[in-house]
Amino acid sequence: MPKHGISPTRKEDYPEWYQQVVRAADLAESSPVRGCMVIKPHGFALWERMQAILDGMFKATGHKNAYFPLFIPLSYLEQEAKHVEGFAKECAVVTHHRLELDADGRLVPKGKLEEPLVVRPTSETIIGAMYAKWVQSWRDLPILINQWANVVRWEMRPRVFLRTAEFLWQEGHTAHATEAEALQETLQMLDIYAMFAERDLAIPVWKGPKPESERFPGAVETYSIEAMMQDGKALQAGTSHFLGQNFAKAQNISFTDKTSKEEYCWTTSWGVSTRLIGGLIMTHADDDGLVLPPRIAPEQIVLLPIYRTDEDKTAVMNCCQEMKDLIEENQWRDEKIRVQIDDRDMRGGDKAWQHIKQGVPVRVEIGPRDIANGTVSIARRDEPPKQKHAISLEEFPNSAAELLESIQSNLLKKAVAFRESHSSKIDSKDEIPAFFDASQQDIPGFAYVHVADDPAVAKALDPLKVTVRCTPMEWDEEPGKCLFTGKTVSRRSVISRSY
Amino acid sequence: MPKHGISPTRKEDYPEWYQQVVRAADLAESSPVRGCMVIKPHGFALWERMQAILDGMFKATGHKNAYFPLFIPLSYLEQEAKHVEGFAKECAVVTHHRLELDADGRLVPKGKLEEPLVVRPTSETIIGAMYAKWVQSWRDLPILINQWANVVRWEMRPRVFLRTAEFLWQEGHTAHATEAEALQETLQMLDIYAMFAERDLAIPVWKGPKPESERFPGAVETYSIEAMMQDGKALQAGTSHFLGQNFAKAQNISFTDKTSKEEYCWTTSWGVSTRLIGGLIMTHADDDGLVLPPRIAPEQIVLLPIYRTDEDKTAVMNCCQEMKDLIEENQWRDEKIRVQIDDRDMRGGDKAWQHIKQGVPVRVEIGPRDIANGTVSIARRDEPPKQKHAISLEEFPNSAAELLESIQSNLLKKAVAFRESHSSKIDSKDEIPAFFDASQQDIPGFAYVHVADDPAVAKALDPLKVTVRCTPMEWDEEPGKCLFTGKTVSRRSVISRSY
Repeated sequence: MPKHGISPTRKEDYPEWYQQVVRAADLAESSPVRGCMVIKPHGFALWERMQAILDGMFKATGHKNAYFPLFIPLSYLEQEAKHVEGFAKECAVVTHHRLELDADGRLVPKGKLEEPLVVRPTSETIIGAMYAKWVQSWRDLPILINQWANVVRWEMRPRVFLRTAEFLWQEGHTAHATEAEALQETLQMLDIYAMFAERDLAIPVWKGPKPESERFPGAVETYSIEAMMQDGKALQAGTSHFLGQNFAKAQNISFTDKTSKEEYCWTTSWGVSTRLIGGLIMTHADDDGLVLPPRIAPEQIVLLPIYRTDEDKTAVMNCCQEMKDLIEENQWRDEKIRVQIDDRDMRGGDKAWQHIKQGVPVRVEIGPRDIANGTVSIARRDEPPKQKHAISLEEFPNSAAELLESIQSNLLKKAVAFRESHSSKIDSKDEIPAFFDASQQDIPGFAYVHVADDPAVAKALDPLKVTVRCTPMEWDEEPGKCLFTGKTVSRRSVISRSY
Repeated sequence: MPKHGISPTRKEDYPEWYQQVVRAADLAESSPVRGCMVIKPHGFALWERMQAILDGMFKATGHKNAYFPLFIPLSYLEQEAKHVEGFAKECAVVTHHRLELDADGRLVPKGKLEEPLVVRPTSETIIGAMYAKWVQSWRDLPILINQWANVVRWEMRPRVFLRTAEFLWQEGHTAHATEAEALQETLQMLDIYAMFAERDLAIPVWKGPKPESERFPGAVETYSIEAMMQDGKALQAGTSHFLGQNFAKAQNISFTDKTSKEEYCWTTSWGVSTRLIGGLIMTHADDDGLVLPPRIAPEQIVLLPIYRTDEDKTAVMNCCQEMKDLIEENQWRDEKIRVQIDDRDMRGGDKAWQHIKQGVPVRVEIGPRDIANGTVSIARRDEPPKQKHAISLEEFPNSAAELLESIQSNLLKKAVAFRESHSSKIDSKDEIPAFFDASQQDIPGFAYVHVADDPAVAKALDPLKVTVRCTPMEWDEEPGKCLFTGKTVSRRSVISRSY
């Protein structure tokens, strides 16, 4: 077991390995409030990077940000029957609006509310109520709004980033005059999520509609992006919902069309959350700790000065500063390259390991001997810790962008290869149990199978603890018969265990 | 009364004028949830600008963002006696964690929590609990963390942006090894707020300590920036609290110093909120609507193409696009200048008035005649709507930055002049009632008075409905005797009505 690595390893205990990676990278920790996490600066910096990139993509497609209330009156939740059914079991309910000290000096709730308020688990109902006021005529459409917010879903089995009572997310809510336009919006946002996952997070995803049993409560169709984690389970990494006229009818979001006819709007909603940080970890991290794709890394390159004497220190620090300035003159993917010099007074080995555990893509060691030789020692986080490359000191600043691009694309390539090596097309019902039997293979991944969108399928799969994740739209049509119902379907679906 | 202006005017009914400016600029509106506002896209864009600038200033001074739970256990609030006293009356309390349908089909709260949770009114206690875990030795200090978040303080008399049950803010929380360092941090953040207010929002502020009666519950000293609104009232626009060791002792945030002695930390907290948007409106808006300082305006320049024929349209639109491109090649205050072309199909006058009401700093009309003459017609939002300037079409793109700077500085100058013309040094107790008597002057503003930090002062001022806002530190020492207690004080303080 390496002194500095993560214990246990992925193979030894995957769930515990995950917790230890989060801890070693100082991303987050549990709080005294049941199920709520504290996102620490290094973890929050990842979320800020995700926000910046996604926000730019949303705005480039015409969306604007706004902010709606944290609280939802009970009567609003009641409006859409399936919606309330889906969320009632996990709602934090505010019932009082002040506190008083009792005779024992303990605080007790007072000022009972006439109507209790729910802390938003999602905002369709409160936002829909506003849209109903804002939309009068076809001229008011489309409404293209996004909100960055916290939401609360009471979780009995919380797990940092993946499943927490409170989490941060963005929720887009749009209203349109036609079904076609709303459907197009739903798919556009799904594409944006998929592009973001693959291009920026280096997480390969399958995107497509989910079966009815996995739909968002109240949606006509839910599309998701699904990624394979290193234990073979699927992580639903983002969803885009076509809500049809369900919410519009429940909330009376209607408009006068060009022919003066009163019509209901067609609405969509779509979101990704801090869960993506969990997905990032479980896709790329290894038994040494976090591995960050350069595009999302708050620090892309860390310069580690090495010296013993004061004289060496001056020369080495000057060289580091000069190199930092030169690197920062370069751009990678339209952004200034992010470089830090880590001059903290601690053992060099411990320092390097801290950056390894935090996933910094590139470590550069610079000492007196390197300066004399005109080289620097480069280590890539996507290679083993001890593998180092001597590179010309002069050339490095101008090749840094290329190095980052190489790491970024290598991480995606690795993740794709991992997914493909743990996936199989399966064409016989009888082969499915063996595929998911952990005693027969270490990491049961994705089964690509012909299945109909039918409750019988979910029921048949239930004993295996697997579900239909989605039916990837990017796959060519390959019609076949559902292994469980015999119905003809046009494409395979992804079946797997999931988070 | 102008057809397109704000009705009522400031003079006719200031509070109602404020509401109408918010409505005309489409910034926000009230929601179905009592006391909670919906921040609409144009209003939220202002908050995004504020966030971007402040966040940069926080990071440049070594702070990092993090995120702490929305909920606070009751027992945490109880830890600091004054703190709980200050917030108990306005806390939203979560008591249940799910909903069930009763026999009548109505949702009712179920799953009673063992310990109720408060929706954070501010986060000193929950963040302090984490700091107590994180800080062991002097090496762990300082902790310099900021959080962008929503907070809830139950308001009986909500007013959009100024006083709402839920609002958005940032709260910085820092822990230090020494008193001097914590005090320096407190004052540094106060300076940052003052610089942001004056340089970016064009809102002149006085900054200094507040009297004990106006302190943050649990603080040793509260410093604020105070701005004069156009009705003469003060708006507390930001606060920075020196918490001493009060919270550290209550929560056991302690560390081992360099001599191995166990010591309590010294902590600070500081915040500004969406209230700043209210301050921006009430400082600059006029009887025509919102007026935005260019630095904070989401759109700094709007180009208004004017044409009747299709032939004219092509020429005019080409000219607009070219001008937009040329302007965007220029920077103002290290940012690309933000230009939009408004080509919507609506009456030119209505369109111009929409931009006036939304406060866009510069409107540029471009029609066929302008192109023929080689000029454009410029209107500045800090001048009357009908005042226009013909400027050379060729020169405008390169002079745009200068124009924005001129508007920005003119708005600050105007606001300073307004404040000074409604402020007086007062050296006799008997003159104070007359100064604040609305029947004797339209807009009673700031009285600059020698007063001690003594409960007797607050008591004497209470019948006049005015308070001591702060004692500006930037003023030269000018010792004098407190008009109410006779004690000698070194500087004057600001006394006024307030929001």
